Amino acid sequence: MNSALLTDLYQLTMLQVYFDRGMNRTAVFEFFVRKMPEHRNFLVAAGLEQVLDFLEALHFTGEELEWLAGSGRFSRDFVGSLADLRFTGDVAAMPEGTPFFPDEPILRVVAPLPQAQLVETRIINLLQFEVMVASKAARVRLAAPDKLLVDFGLRRAHGAEAGLLSARASYLAGFDGTSNVQAGMLWDIPLFGTMAHSFIQAHDSEMQAFEDFARSHPKANTLLIDTYDTEGAARRLVPLAQRLAGEGIDIGAVRIDSGDLSAHARSVRRILDEGGLPAVKIFASGNLDEYRVRDLVAGGVPIDGFGVGTRMNTSADAPYLDCAYKLQEYAGLPRRKRSEGKATWPGRKQVIRNYDEAGRMAGDLLTTLDAAPAAGGLLQEVMRNGRRLGAPPSLQDARRHAQAELERLPAAQRALSAAPDYAVAVDQPLRILAREVDTRTAVD
Amino acid sequence: MNSALLTDLYQLTMLQVYFDRGMNRTAVFEFFVRKMPEHRNFLVAAGLEQVLDFLEALHFTGEELEWLAGSGRFSRDFVGSLADLRFTGDVAAMPEGTPFFPDEPILRVVAPLPQAQLVETRIINLLQFEVMVASKAARVRLAAPDKLLVDFGLRRAHGAEAGLLSARASYLAGFDGTSNVQAGMLWDIPLFGTMAHSFIQAHDSEMQAFEDFARSHPKANTLLIDTYDTEGAARRLVPLAQRLAGEGIDIGAVRIDSGDLSAHARSVRRILDEGGLPAVKIFASGNLDEYRVRDLVAGGVPIDGFGVGTRMNTSADAPYLDCAYKLQEYAGLPRRKRSEGKATWPGRKQVIRNYDEAGRMAGDLLTTLDAAPAAGGLLQEVMRNGRRLGAPPSLQDARRHAQAELERLPAAQRALSAAPDYAVAVDQPLRILAREVDTRTAVD
Repeated sequence: MNSALLTDLYQLTMLQVYFDRGMNRTAVFEFFVRKMPEHRNFLVAAGLEQVLDFLEALHFTGEELEWLAGSGRFSRDFVGSLADLRFTGDVAAMPEGTPFFPDEPILRVVAPLPQAQLVETRIINLLQFEVMVASKAARVRLAAPDKLLVDFGLRRAHGAEAGLLSARASYLAGFDGTSNVQAGMLWDIPLFGTMAHSFIQAHDSEMQAFEDFARSHPKANTLLIDTYDTEGAARRLVPLAQRLAGEGIDIGAVRIDSGDLSAHARSVRRILDEGGLPAVKIFASGNLDEYRVRDLVAGGVPIDGFGVGTRMNTSADAPYLDCAYKLQEYAGLPRRKRSEGKATWPGRKQVIRNYDEAGRMAGDLLTTLDAAPAAGGLLQEVMRNGRRLGAPPSLQDARRHAQAELERLPAAQRALSAAPDYAVAVDQPLRILAREVDTRTAVD
Repeated sequence: MNSALLTDLYQLTMLQVYFDRGMNRTAVFEFFVRKMPEHRNFLVAAGLEQVLDFLEALHFTGEELEWLAGSGRFSRDFVGSLADLRFTGDVAAMPEGTPFFPDEPILRVVAPLPQAQLVETRIINLLQFEVMVASKAARVRLAAPDKLLVDFGLRRAHGAEAGLLSARASYLAGFDGTSNVQAGMLWDIPLFGTMAHSFIQAHDSEMQAFEDFARSHPKANTLLIDTYDTEGAARRLVPLAQRLAGEGIDIGAVRIDSGDLSAHARSVRRILDEGGLPAVKIFASGNLDEYRVRDLVAGGVPIDGFGVGTRMNTSADAPYLDCAYKLQEYAGLPRRKRSEGKATWPGRKQVIRNYDEAGRMAGDLLTTLDAAPAAGGLLQEVMRNGRRLGAPPSLQDARRHAQAELERLPAAQRALSAAPDYAVAVDQPLRILAREVDTRTAVD
């Protein structure tokens, strides 16, 4: 999934021109979000480690070069030059888990123009998606600070990589784990899993299915009770659980996946409590997102954990971000685009974050890298000459950083409903630079 | 991306129980969509070839087995048994490109229970996504039957695989090609690509950028003209194009990516025509989907082709499907789930499609496989004992099938706005079977 051909054709047609013209001087690109999606008050930086993996491994295989040569689109010399192409540039970025806002770069690439150009497509592809899911997952966590939250979304994620990266991004943003086994193996994310309706249906009776499952998994099991009749299953479970307890087999939890989750959870809780099973937890799933979780939690529903899938992994209410990876400087000169509605701030930039006395975020300053203090900016150097500076933080460390950072969000930004924009001021040196660039740029 | 661990943990915890209990008899699962998304009048079958690739290759690697053994969740004997697990079952499916409707199975898996269970997650993951994108792309094609349509969505697709599969699914459904180079190499999809704003900005002048590009790509090139001032660029292009024409270099097209596409296209068309460049085509991109394309086409705008990306590749107005892969039969007995709002039709099913005198689709019949005629049903056997029956159709052949099938859609279904449901009747034998299953199924 990290082929150098995982790019738009135009990157290669542009590289042909850069090759023909010897345009190989240093370019600076930055990735940023142009506009906050309608339903978000903050975004969470995520995906940096996948970008760095991609950059470190970047190369064309022999088979790919042969295919490019045979396409008839490129000169032989140019295709030959691609054999040696590696990423040799520098990268600065906000640490994963850092909240950010529109116009703030979260990644800066400084590299020879062809390299910095070629990687655009995959960088956007990775950052957009992980940012989007981490931002959505953080909202679910805000809606249910004390509940078990598990990513259930692999099956309706958009392909395999989306399933894997959304398990990672949601864990980064505060989820407790995932059902995605491969994500568990890749990143040491805690795994959770229960049983499917098909398991119940494959048995001749629901109680036999429960008993079989509990015998194979005598600890921390979860039984799915809504295949036929939720309350009926809960009632029949009580004597079964008591009998199994006599053999040292514990029922850990029940899962409800359909119907009115609040009503079912309340009646099931009552049945279990009256049946002497107060330790059996209730887990709910089915079309959940931060809004439904918030409403359930606000109603004081006796649900201990939520499986959140489809709507989070597809970021269903905002399934894409208005984001870009734009040229900010080439050959030492700052640049910017002025297309209608898409103008950008030129040059290498830095983000300075202010905090109030309580340690809460209190407004950011977007400024030029030159005008920013040498330390303390949100973008930190993470790669030099194509190699990471030090070992990457573990996903667990990044998760702790995210948790600490999300606690510093202003109260308004922590709400699920739309809040007034968080203040991001544009510093005077950056405004002056933009005017200089416009004056200088020739169009004819 | 086809690891056997690309699954939900519960598949493996259920498989442990099946192993412990020797539950290895034949299971039948079917994949279907429960409910049409709000903005769709039909869906298009897609993703079958990826499912068959996955099934043919299914196995656990040594590293994966070691990791599973070390997880402490499974018995040694069970993990040992997974080393030999392969998919040995049968598959029937609707050919890719076939329109279908809710409750109609598009894929049936018949295999020993553990195999059929394990593959659920990835089958849904693949089919949901390709169906969703093919269905969206077919609508864009309906909105612009005679325009060049190119998939531009890799960068905002949800990860790499989503980018690849959406290039494939949109081409299947009638697009002319994609910008995604790897998809071009994998499936021989025609590639299209122009230049980015960064290319213009990296040059000291826009016209120098155009000239450099045209000299490196003297045929069928496309120049991006909206970086600074769309009409201004078109005006300055006229003398440049005339000068280059003298050297045998043709300008193929211009691309507009921002602002009021309709107004810009009209004025640019006038400038080009008056400048003696009537053969230079106009290509448009930027936040397009079937609705915007329809409105532009209806207004008679002089745009020759559209780059459609983000909103198609994320299926932005319906980013997931209410779909399922459900157990229909185990050990010779039909089964069904009765969860609230999620009840399913039991047993092995077939879909019979009727046509009117003009060859248009005129209603489907959902029936039991037993009651269906031996030939003529939409689901056809494609895999037996874990091996494909014959070579898969080429993507080009599947695309021709899709085109022919989409032409047979009733007029109401071809509209972009919501139409009355296409008639899918449930046959009497299937209703009788469902009642029998409910009577038989014990819950206690």
